Amino acid sequence: MNDGFTVSIVGLGLMGGSLALALRQANKDSDPLPFHAYRIIGVARSAETLAAAQAAGAVEATTTDLAEGIAEADIIVLATPVRTILRLLPEVGRYAKPGALVLDLGSTKAQICQAMANLPEHLQPVGGHPMCGKETSGFTAADADLFRGRPFVLCPLPRTSSAALDLARSLACAAGARPVILDPAVHDRAVAAISHLPYVAAVALVHAAADDPVAWSLVSSGFRDTTRVAVCDVDMMLDILLTNREAVLVWLDAFAGQLAGLRAALDIGDEPGLRAQLAAARAWRADLTL
Amino acid sequence: MNDGFTVSIVGLGLMGGSLALALRQANKDSDPLPFHAYRIIGVARSAETLAAAQAAGAVEATTTDLAEGIAEADIIVLATPVRTILRLLPEVGRYAKPGALVLDLGSTKAQICQAMANLPEHLQPVGGHPMCGKETSGFTAADADLFRGRPFVLCPLPRTSSAALDLARSLACAAGARPVILDPAVHDRAVAAISHLPYVAAVALVHAAADDPVAWSLVSSGFRDTTRVAVCDVDMMLDILLTNREAVLVWLDAFAGQLAGLRAALDIGDEPGLRAQLAAARAWRADLTL
Repeated sequence: MNDGFTVSIVGLGLMGGSLALALRQANKDSDPLPFHAYRIIGVARSAETLAAAQAAGAVEATTTDLAEGIAEADIIVLATPVRTILRLLPEVGRYAKPGALVLDLGSTKAQICQAMANLPEHLQPVGGHPMCGKETSGFTAADADLFRGRPFVLCPLPRTSSAALDLARSLACAAGARPVILDPAVHDRAVAAISHLPYVAAVALVHAAADDPVAWSLVSSGFRDTTRVAVCDVDMMLDILLTNREAVLVWLDAFAGQLAGLRAALDIGDEPGLRAQLAAARAWRADLTL
Repeated sequence: MNDGFTVSIVGLGLMGGSLALALRQANKDSDPLPFHAYRIIGVARSAETLAAAQAAGAVEATTTDLAEGIAEADIIVLATPVRTILRLLPEVGRYAKPGALVLDLGSTKAQICQAMANLPEHLQPVGGHPMCGKETSGFTAADADLFRGRPFVLCPLPRTSSAALDLARSLACAAGARPVILDPAVHDRAVAAISHLPYVAAVALVHAAADDPVAWSLVSSGFRDTTRVAVCDVDMMLDILLTNREAVLVWLDAFAGQLAGLRAALDIGDEPGLRAQLAAARAWRADLTL
């Protein structure tokens, strides 16, 4: 038993803000947990965001200064877009205290884990990615229940101690998530298939339909849902695509192959072949429970 | 003023069942409307469906016999999958009473309107397509508010009288929808872009991701929504794709072109080009109010 951990969350948008709210909620419910309190320091560029987070009771202290914000932290959580995380890591290495866990919430993991390998040896890096989100962003979209029941991918480095990994696991559990340990490259390939490819497909669907004014005037709930992710923050998505380029290209090619197969079956009127493919997709998708 | 219209609805699934419920609701609210009542006869193959529709108060009379079910109808609404509508039209021509409006709710219009041109001259055909739906099907999914505020496409034939078109328009309005008059080919091109292409894309996305067990174990709300339409009824979707083949092929090619453009920009790391395309899609999609 100890009297808790100081957690510095850098970036208080949807993910960082939701983590802060979830940990504050865990503090209230924490009697049976191994750690009875997380003290949360919010670090962000915008004073307005910090004020909103403090007003919502998400953080106990705030600062716009990274060095000051992480100096006392047992756990540093980087919750900015991916390329900002890559830029911040050297600074984190300079100002974090020895033994601190350095965790991130970025949507791609290979480049981040590679950069984490350059952190000073006295720090404990773990790549992280909670598998949840919304198309909205910013602290105003944050939600204490965002992580509840969702997989929270953790990518320890070879040098990461088991105590540090346990700490990351506890934090994920305290936020209500299910920790899943994965290799960074395996993670990046998987999320390219289920998140980055669907995003690119949604963008392309919007471009195709927006060219036809009659089509656009008739759009219904099917189009709305299929293209919902196209409103995701552009900076965040650019960072994701550009730091997971190879996996996204592989899945774009696989997707183009699937589409070409469906096109060919439709073109020649191969009804049994088309039926088999539609029925298989229907059965798989109907099995998803989310 | 008259004492109402007898409406035979053939097929009491999601669309036909919802129309029956919406018209029964309109009867209750109809004092200021030109027609004070729609008497609704339900025609379906399944006695179970008919019993459910009668129990829900959606219909006043039921039969599994098409000839009997439409003999007295002022308005015949064909609400089955598209190729069933094509098969039923000659029978409708034999048994409908002179002057009857023959309207359908099928998702593609060119082939149906072409077949409607072969109906006996004493009938009044209008192709119809309410722009709404759900991924679920059957009378249990029916909803009196399904049509509310949605476009209801009407495709009159050259021979259709203006009185018959007005009657179709009144029925769409009574169901809460907004009638939109369109040429069948223009309709089919438009819905290929906003409905049939997104469906094929969703099917291909499911096929791509289902091949990767790690990916499948991590799917989140983005994938769930992007692929929701992949659980649509396979028979219904096969009918739609096969009766709108040319338009779907054109849009599949346009979509493949959009994807190839995005792929090329990502491949060479053209960040400004990629940003411009993502930002344009975001702005268009954010403007959708549904």
